[in-house]
Amino acid sequence: MTSAYKKLHDTFARLSRFGHLSAIAGWDAAAMMPPEGGQARSEALAELSVLTHQILTAKQVGEWLEQAGGEQLNDLEQANLREMRRHYQQAALLPESLVQAKSLAGARCEQAWRIQRKSNDWEGFSENLKEVVKLSRQEAQLRAEAAGISRYDALLDLYEPGMTSQKLDVLFGDLKTWLPDLLQTVVEKQKTETRIAPQGPFDIEKQRQLGLKVMGKLGFNFDAGRLDVSAHPFCGGVPQDVRITTRYNENEFLSAMMGVIHETGHARYEQNLPKEWLGQPVSNARSMGVHESQSLLFEMQLGCSEPFLKSVYPLVIEQFGHREGLDESNFMKLNQRVQPGFIRVDADELSYPAHVILRYEIEKALMEGEIEVDDIPALWNRKMKEYLGIDTVGNYRDGCMQDIHWTDGGFGYFPTYTLGAMYAAQLFRTANKAIPTLQDDIVRGDLTALFQWLQQNIWQHGSRFTTDQLMKNATGETLNPAFFRAHLEGRYL
Amino acid sequence: MTSAYKKLHDTFARLSRFGHLSAIAGWDAAAMMPPEGGQARSEALAELSVLTHQILTAKQVGEWLEQAGGEQLNDLEQANLREMRRHYQQAALLPESLVQAKSLAGARCEQAWRIQRKSNDWEGFSENLKEVVKLSRQEAQLRAEAAGISRYDALLDLYEPGMTSQKLDVLFGDLKTWLPDLLQTVVEKQKTETRIAPQGPFDIEKQRQLGLKVMGKLGFNFDAGRLDVSAHPFCGGVPQDVRITTRYNENEFLSAMMGVIHETGHARYEQNLPKEWLGQPVSNARSMGVHESQSLLFEMQLGCSEPFLKSVYPLVIEQFGHREGLDESNFMKLNQRVQPGFIRVDADELSYPAHVILRYEIEKALMEGEIEVDDIPALWNRKMKEYLGIDTVGNYRDGCMQDIHWTDGGFGYFPTYTLGAMYAAQLFRTANKAIPTLQDDIVRGDLTALFQWLQQNIWQHGSRFTTDQLMKNATGETLNPAFFRAHLEGRYL
Repeated sequence: MTSAYKKLHDTFARLSRFGHLSAIAGWDAAAMMPPEGGQARSEALAELSVLTHQILTAKQVGEWLEQAGGEQLNDLEQANLREMRRHYQQAALLPESLVQAKSLAGARCEQAWRIQRKSNDWEGFSENLKEVVKLSRQEAQLRAEAAGISRYDALLDLYEPGMTSQKLDVLFGDLKTWLPDLLQTVVEKQKTETRIAPQGPFDIEKQRQLGLKVMGKLGFNFDAGRLDVSAHPFCGGVPQDVRITTRYNENEFLSAMMGVIHETGHARYEQNLPKEWLGQPVSNARSMGVHESQSLLFEMQLGCSEPFLKSVYPLVIEQFGHREGLDESNFMKLNQRVQPGFIRVDADELSYPAHVILRYEIEKALMEGEIEVDDIPALWNRKMKEYLGIDTVGNYRDGCMQDIHWTDGGFGYFPTYTLGAMYAAQLFRTANKAIPTLQDDIVRGDLTALFQWLQQNIWQHGSRFTTDQLMKNATGETLNPAFFRAHLEGRYL
Repeated sequence: MTSAYKKLHDTFARLSRFGHLSAIAGWDAAAMMPPEGGQARSEALAELSVLTHQILTAKQVGEWLEQAGGEQLNDLEQANLREMRRHYQQAALLPESLVQAKSLAGARCEQAWRIQRKSNDWEGFSENLKEVVKLSRQEAQLRAEAAGISRYDALLDLYEPGMTSQKLDVLFGDLKTWLPDLLQTVVEKQKTETRIAPQGPFDIEKQRQLGLKVMGKLGFNFDAGRLDVSAHPFCGGVPQDVRITTRYNENEFLSAMMGVIHETGHARYEQNLPKEWLGQPVSNARSMGVHESQSLLFEMQLGCSEPFLKSVYPLVIEQFGHREGLDESNFMKLNQRVQPGFIRVDADELSYPAHVILRYEIEKALMEGEIEVDDIPALWNRKMKEYLGIDTVGNYRDGCMQDIHWTDGGFGYFPTYTLGAMYAAQLFRTANKAIPTLQDDIVRGDLTALFQWLQQNIWQHGSRFTTDQLMKNATGETLNPAFFRAHLEGRYL
């Protein structure tokens, strides 16, 4: 007789094949699709999301999950079963009609946003967003009731299992006590230094070539992935075929280059998830926070460090030649510039947490029903002024319309960026202790030992352990924000 | 109560949404996917083909089809029901296991072929092909038994409903009586003329720009489609988002340009299928032969005509400048050069039918069990020698391994190329009679009237009529190969 576990295994393998199609069609929609394809694509993806919801929440699956609990399973299978149960419980709560409505409303809002953002059209955007918020609240309510937690916590748990707004309030509350002062100090300090903006234009094909070379240095497997362009950089696709994107600006190349380094961090995690378990939930990346820890370890811990910048500098010169603003010491300084600005994805690591905390506070209030969509711009403006001293009044494009996340209902995701930054600092510090030669290795462009350490401590484990356990195994303790503070003070003071 | 027809309507709409994902993932596999993504992609597409097979062949669908026959339906709904029935019957014959096995074997064979063709590896390829042939024969046998026709005819009907090998034997038999002599005469005649091969290299980005401009002239809607690169040019995607591909060679630009014109013919048909019926079978292109008639009308009837070449010539000069071999009269002659060669997709319109007849004869014998895969190379060599005077011994790459069609079991498809050439000649002749100013319009680059005629007579009808009826409505008679002969003699003698 086939065991219940085996039946679950086959069902989740099947779901993963449909997930593959969804991932590729989703990447295509962002990176390739012409505008008139949008409506049909949304409908196709919504149809698929209904189908996978049906498969995952079939009555049998619930029964098999119960039966499998009594079967002889090894540790990995136990972990897989735990993840299966989590997926099942998360999905079984939602009626199919809500899944379909959310998928359609999200796709509509996202696709319109691509145009509305360009034209600063908050009026048009907010209409679509209201529908998305309405459906997300319904989802949050159902999840909250089932788990006996708050609406926002129920969403947060989707992206960062085990995380709560209570913990976040502590973590972010702590940040708020020291980060604004540190930011202020560093901004003042940097005012005394000379930085020269390198003179453009920077040919876009050359920027692409630079990105590809840096990806090569960072171990990206080009036989199992691609680099393309999209409005909002992301890492998509499937572990066997990881699709990362960036965007180019002729006047400035660092933003695209750093975007590529960031997404390559995500990509290497995906490309190195446990191969023998692909298709099973236990092979998935642990959480969005852990995912972001990899991209930020690549971009911030490694990418903006002087040893790494030294090793990348010759590639930059190879593409763009020596020109004003491209001498080595200025290049270093440019990549460690602290300058509060409008755009989260372009933010330096000192201002980034402020962007996240602002969004966290707004989306939490929105999901808990304390504010409405119409309240967002004023709140945004007030908090941007308060946290970063920046005026965004009337500038929706570079204000509350800059992110893709809310367009398809990804409420609860933003905190994972700053959690990721904290995990990254803790992991990189530990890796440096474990590999005494690491700083020299990096200057020489030899990242083998670092990648081996990440492979052994993070990548190969997929979702085998909880985040707490994973961090404990890797660093000896669970999340400790002191590493992040030490990193920032060490680099910028 | 919901009518049976409405239930069918919704079921086919759902199938079409899954078809959308399959089309985009298929395009991606050919145009974007890195090699290590292949295995997972094949599995995902096979899973989807099993799913759509299940949905289409559900017992209920058969019952609804019976009930709907007794419901009040208008003409279009009747036509839609006829097409639904055809799809159902074609699918219901096949066991799910065969559908899955065929999909997997086809994907495996096609993906390996991409590499094996380059290395001329017939040994490796034939192993995979044997599995595909075995499964295709099983499919053909099931279809043949159900329809009471021969195995090959049963496959042919999938691509060209109503066509039989008996009819093809007559059509192709007739061609064989006059085409070899005509080919010989034209080759001799052209030997006395001077043609200069334009001097490369032709920058690939410039070739791409030229292709995009020609697509623009030909009315391609770039908001609903793209041009990309693949090993084997094709037109894929969905009517709302048509993906065409070509391939580039730095030494020669005409092949890519003509490939683009060809695929644009397919694309305009797809982009102009009846919008209000999209998602229903009646909105599909009528048949592969009719599809090919549009691409060949664009490429051969229009594209290789002197009036059109005159109108395109300035675009060519704009990209590549005046250089040897690019004076206008030589440019005309290059596009009407008749020169039997190895490669079907690069063949002129006089040698093309020989490529098709050769494949038709081989694949028919293969499906009927008269020959085996191991017999293909010798047969191929003999027929190439006989029909085109070309020696392909040992050259599998440019011989029997050049096409993608057999790799995934597309037996019965090849004849539609020459049927398309015949339909195209008949349609273009009729359009010229209907639009007396057409030749002048074309020189001036004004293709409005031609496209209007195609829209009214072919594109807007989808699968509403049978091919015979469509041709009769458009041209006053069913397929008449005399138009093709008159066209070739008129252009080349």
